[in-house]
Order: sequence, then C-alpha cells, then structure tokens
Amino acid sequence: MAGRQAAIAHAALKRVQAELGERQLDALLVAQPENRRYLSGYSAEDNGIQESAGFLLIPESGRPRLLTDSRFTLQAEAEAPEYGIYMYRRGLVEALEELLPEMGIRQLGFEADYCLYALWLRLQALAKRLKLRLTATSGLVESLRVVKTPEELELVRAASALNDRVFQTAFAQVQTGMSERELARLIEGTMLDLGAERPSFDTIVAFGENAAKPHAVPGGRRLVAGETVLIDMGLVLDGYCSDMSRTFVLGEPDAQYLERHRLVRAAQKAGMAAIRAGVSGSEVDRAARQVLAAGGYGEAFGHGLGHGVGLAVHEAPRLSPSGRETLEAGMVVTVEPGLYLADWGGIRLENMVIVTEAGCELLNRDSTWLDL
Amino acid sequence: MAGRQAAIAHAALKRVQAELGERQLDALLVAQPENRRYLSGYSAEDNGIQESAGFLLIPESGRPRLLTDSRFTLQAEAEAPEYGIYMYRRGLVEALEELLPEMGIRQLGFEADYCLYALWLRLQALAKRLKLRLTATSGLVESLRVVKTPEELELVRAASALNDRVFQTAFAQVQTGMSERELARLIEGTMLDLGAERPSFDTIVAFGENAAKPHAVPGGRRLVAGETVLIDMGLVLDGYCSDMSRTFVLGEPDAQYLERHRLVRAAQKAGMAAIRAGVSGSEVDRAARQVLAAGGYGEAFGHGLGHGVGLAVHEAPRLSPSGRETLEAGMVVTVEPGLYLADWGGIRLENMVIVTEAGCELLNRDSTWLDL
Repeated sequence: MAGRQAAIAHAALKRVQAELGERQLDALLVAQPENRRYLSGYSAEDNGIQESAGFLLIPESGRPRLLTDSRFTLQAEAEAPEYGIYMYRRGLVEALEELLPEMGIRQLGFEADYCLYALWLRLQALAKRLKLRLTATSGLVESLRVVKTPEELELVRAASALNDRVFQTAFAQVQTGMSERELARLIEGTMLDLGAERPSFDTIVAFGENAAKPHAVPGGRRLVAGETVLIDMGLVLDGYCSDMSRTFVLGEPDAQYLERHRLVRAAQKAGMAAIRAGVSGSEVDRAARQVLAAGGYGEAFGHGLGHGVGLAVHEAPRLSPSGRETLEAGMVVTVEPGLYLADWGGIRLENMVIVTEAGCELLNRDSTWLDL
Repeated sequence: MAGRQAAIAHAALKRVQAELGERQLDALLVAQPENRRYLSGYSAEDNGIQESAGFLLIPESGRPRLLTDSRFTLQAEAEAPEYGIYMYRRGLVEALEELLPEMGIRQLGFEADYCLYALWLRLQALAKRLKLRLTATSGLVESLRVVKTPEELELVRAASALNDRVFQTAFAQVQTGMSERELARLIEGTMLDLGAERPSFDTIVAFGENAAKPHAVPGGRRLVAGETVLIDMGLVLDGYCSDMSRTFVLGEPDAQYLERHRLVRAAQKAGMAAIRAGVSGSEVDRAARQVLAAGGYGEAFGHGLGHGVGLAVHEAPRLSPSGRETLEAGMVVTVEPGLYLADWGGIRLENMVIVTEAGCELLNRDSTWLDL
C-alpha cells in the first residue's frame, strides 16, 4: 500500500501547489489531520488539537517540509519520503521562524478551520517580525479531497470490503443474552483482528427500542430473541474509512418489522437509483425520502440520506434536503435511509457507493438481511 | 459517583463564577472538553474540535447553560442538572445570538487555547452585531483544575486503583509468543471488562530493544523469554485518568538488567522523596535525575520526570528541568524516571502520587517488579 499512498500524496501535493500558485500564496501551513495525511502519507495521530503530531509546510514550488517532534521523526521519514523532516524542540512557531526566511516565504496561508486563536496570535506576531503576509484559507485542501483518484478509490473499496468481512464474522456470533456493549466490542475486536487500523467512529449497537436513537451508545441491555438489532460500524484501513449499517432480527421478524424494513430498503434503492454525476445531493435525498413519506414514515426519518466518506468518515458532499453540492464521478457517499419510532425502535440500512457518470458503484458486497 | 461529580462540578462552577467577577467578565464560553466536563459533569465526547459535543455558557451569576445538538440533549439533561440545556439546530453562533442578549451578557470571555480562528471570526462579527466585548482568556479553567478537591482525589484514587487491578490481571496472562499488539489489546480489553470508560492514552507495550523508544507503538514483535517488557498504561474512570508504567522480564533477568532496573527504581524513590508542597517541579526532577547521572545514565534519561494528571492525562504541573510551577497539596503527579539505550532497550517505572504538605501519598498499590 505504501506505493499507492505515495502516489496519492504526490498527486495531491501537486494539486495543492498549483492552487497556491493561483492564489498567489508562497506556502500553506497544514495542520488538519486528514489533510496532513492526504498530502504526505504521514499517519501519526494527534492527541486532540492541543497535542499535534505535526504540521506540513508546503511551498508553492520546491521541497515541502514536515515539522514534528522527536517522538515522530522516524515515522515521518519512513512515511513521507517526499518531505524534508524538520524536528522542532520548542514547537511550531520557533520552527517557522527559522524555515520561512530560509525558504523565502513571504505570503503564508494557514487553515482557518483548524488553527487555534492562540496560535493565530503567535503566527501574527511572527508575520510582523518577519514582514510576511498571513492569509486565512478555508477548505483549500478539503475541496480537493472530495473527488477521489483511482488510487484512492482502490483504498476505499478495500476498506469497505474489510468492513463487510468484519460484519459477517461478527454477525455469525450474535447470540441472545449478549449485551450491546459486548457486541460492539466483538465488532471492534474483529476489526483489529482482520487488520483495520481502528474503528472510523464508535460502533453503534442498539437493541429493541434503543434503535430509535440514531446515535445510540451501546449499553448493558441484553439481546432477546425477536427484537431488532441495529449495527452501524466503520473502520479505517490505510487511512481510508468505511461506514455501513445493518438492521436485523434474531429469530422470526413480525409482519410489522418486515413491512418497515422493506420500506427502508426500497428508499435505499430509490436513493441509489438517483445517484449519478450531475445530480445534486438534495435530489438524491428527495428520491429516498419520498418513498418513506409515501409509506407513511416521512416524519420518522429525521436525518440526511448520506454523506461523503474518505480520509474522514464524515466529509463532503452531503445528501440531505439542504445538500447543494452537485455530485461528480469519483465522489464516495453513503446511502443510509432510516426510520425511527420512539416506542418501537428503528431500522437503518447503509451502504457506500462511488458516484459514476452513469450511476453508482455499490461498494458493499454484503447483502445480509437487505432484501427480505 | 453521580453525586460526587455533581459536587465537583458545583464547586468548580462557583470558583469560575468568582473568577469572572474578578475579571469583570459577564460570562465565559467553554469549549475545551475537559474544562466542560469539570464544570458540568457532562461526559459526551467530541469527535475532534470540528465536531463538538457542546459548549458551556457560564454567566458571572445565575443559571449556566449547556448548548448542544439533538443527539446529546438527553444525556446533557441527565448529567448536568445545574445547567439549562439549550438545543441548537444550526450551531453555536446562532444559539449565542439568542442567548447573549436574553442573559444580558455584554462582556464575553472565550478560551483562546480552544477556539478555532474561523469560529473567532464569527464570534467577532456577532460581538459587533450585539455590541458586546469579546475577551480572550487563557488557562482560566485549567488553572483551577491543577489542585484537586477531596472529591476529585477520591476519583483519582479509584482510577489508579483500577489501573493496578488491570495491570495485575494482564500481567498474570503475559506469555512468551504474545505480540506487543496482542498484549496491548489484552490490557485495553481488561480495562473495559473491569469498568473503565476507555484508555486514557494508547497503551504502550514494547519488547526488547523496542523499549528504547519512550513512545513505542505496539507492533507484531513476539515476546521471547529473558527480554524486557515495558508497559505504559492508563485508563479513565468517572472522567479521571490514571497512568502507570512497569518494566519486567519474563524469566530470569541478567545482572545488567537488574543493575539498571534498581537504578531507575532508586531514581523514582529519590523523586518521590523530594515531593512536598512548596517545592518546584524542577527540584523534584533534579532529585531523580541526579541518581541516574551518578549511576552513569544521565544521557539515557531524555524526558521529564513527570506531569500532572486529572481529567486530562497530561496537565500541569510539569516535573522537568524547566518545571517552574511550585507544588501544592492536592496536585496529582506522575513520577516516571526511565533509561533508554538504543541497542539494548529501556526501563521506565511510573507511579502516581498526590502532593501533600509533608510529602506525598502513593496511589499505586501494585508493587510488581519494583524492588528487585
């Protein structure tokens, strides 16, 4: 995978450098963790924004730098061969004070959406001392991440295929008497066993009425035969995320469950059928939402139909009533209609697809409990 | 624990309100996750700074508010009874636009160390519209968190005692042939089994030469009899963190290992003996560092002796050559001297203590492989 990630980083770096040229910026300081990984392949993780594992300093031309501390320099050298690794002792600002003049940078862009106010104050003071211009940018790298390259799509396919395998392995072990928390731990343990870096979000497992909460936190409730099991799970593989949901019943579902499940599945199919390059996120959302509304469950579907997935598990574009972005080939989105009824429970079915010119490519091979 | 946490939050809230009075601020906006939990008991976790689980708006007097979205309102109501819960749909700024005039707030403080530049721009615009003054604060709540109340110390004791139990449970299962990653997963699984919320940091397990890296990431290396095992682990219980390290050998240690281990242990004892209210962090560091230097390993100890622990696993005060803070009774610190030799491996022994007027209270009851 290292070669593929290097190719992704190389192409991304060239695009950012071209963008810097257009904006007349000499360099961009990158702090946002997924942007950093995208542009370099460097995979160290931050312990929150206050304990960063490093920054990229990308000049409009010439060799980019990766600035980090002694804990991470070996990893940075191994993972980001295209970057000059700069080890700081007292932190970012001190490093910039040395590097910016050396690299001849006079117009520095920074990420407004991932720069603490306290750091901005220090950057401002530095800019004054070095007589350079500091420019806030927003979404510069994020906007490049939305449409994936063929290499990235391979990694997304692999992450989603692994998610399918993890689900199927865990599904085979679901038993009555298990708690939600135990099942969530089984799933997350299986992810690691099968080679995932980590879950892409905290696994959701909800039994019975708990499934009425779209973001249920797994608790001590134990599974009884005949009740709903809702699982929403994702993992990270080579930096790329997967995300899928399945809902099923251990034992025989009753007629009401079957009817509702089939309705959610029909909505999912309608959403997928509406996806193709050139269509807006809100149109796709509407196609699925109409099916639920026609079935009498319009009010029971309170969230958007889907979201982009890539290095982040939630990214652009949004499939929702307010989703204005136009889909393009190479975007990756979830299609996850749901139905939530407070006293009864909920059903959510979620697949991931790649947007193509003519339609979409379904990434999930798993079809457990989809068509009943 | 809920009663104890409510008492902690209540006392903390009163102290912050008094501080706001002194600073002539009408209110403080709190975003930093540990500060938020400290002041409210609300335990939801952010998915990074870009996906916050909520904010506190604390007026200098009167009822404080907790601002969050629909996913978290039930949890917020249950956990933060002293707060008025405000559910926002379009986010923080919109909520503030309604609440600030309603609450008569004209001087608003915010956390410079946990506010994104992009949010600050929007807060500035809001301040202009509402004709209020926006004031950057730094460390206002953090500084209150450094000295723990008796209720907090009870929670720290409990977190550390549970860490001891987890270590002992895992230690009993260590076998040759296990990989570092397997042992780390065994430890983290045991934490959850025994009731921890989560690890307080990614568990470090390093075998043999890998122990020479203070922040080693557990890998596929399998344990061989006679080689060093270094474990650094911590957990979160009721919001409070623990942190401990042990180093041992499966089988018979050789004379060189024994000599080095005893030296690190002697440095740890010297550090602990130096701790008491009124002493500076650098003095404590020096007491331990001298022992290692006298034994010929001054260069092999590259990090500080310890750090504060509380709601965050790394917080003030620092025990290090540059640690200027003066210790006070009720602070909680780690004492973790180490010795790292690139071709050989490393030894680190870490306990947690509470600073008292006369000395310190050792929190770790575990004495596995300390005195050899």
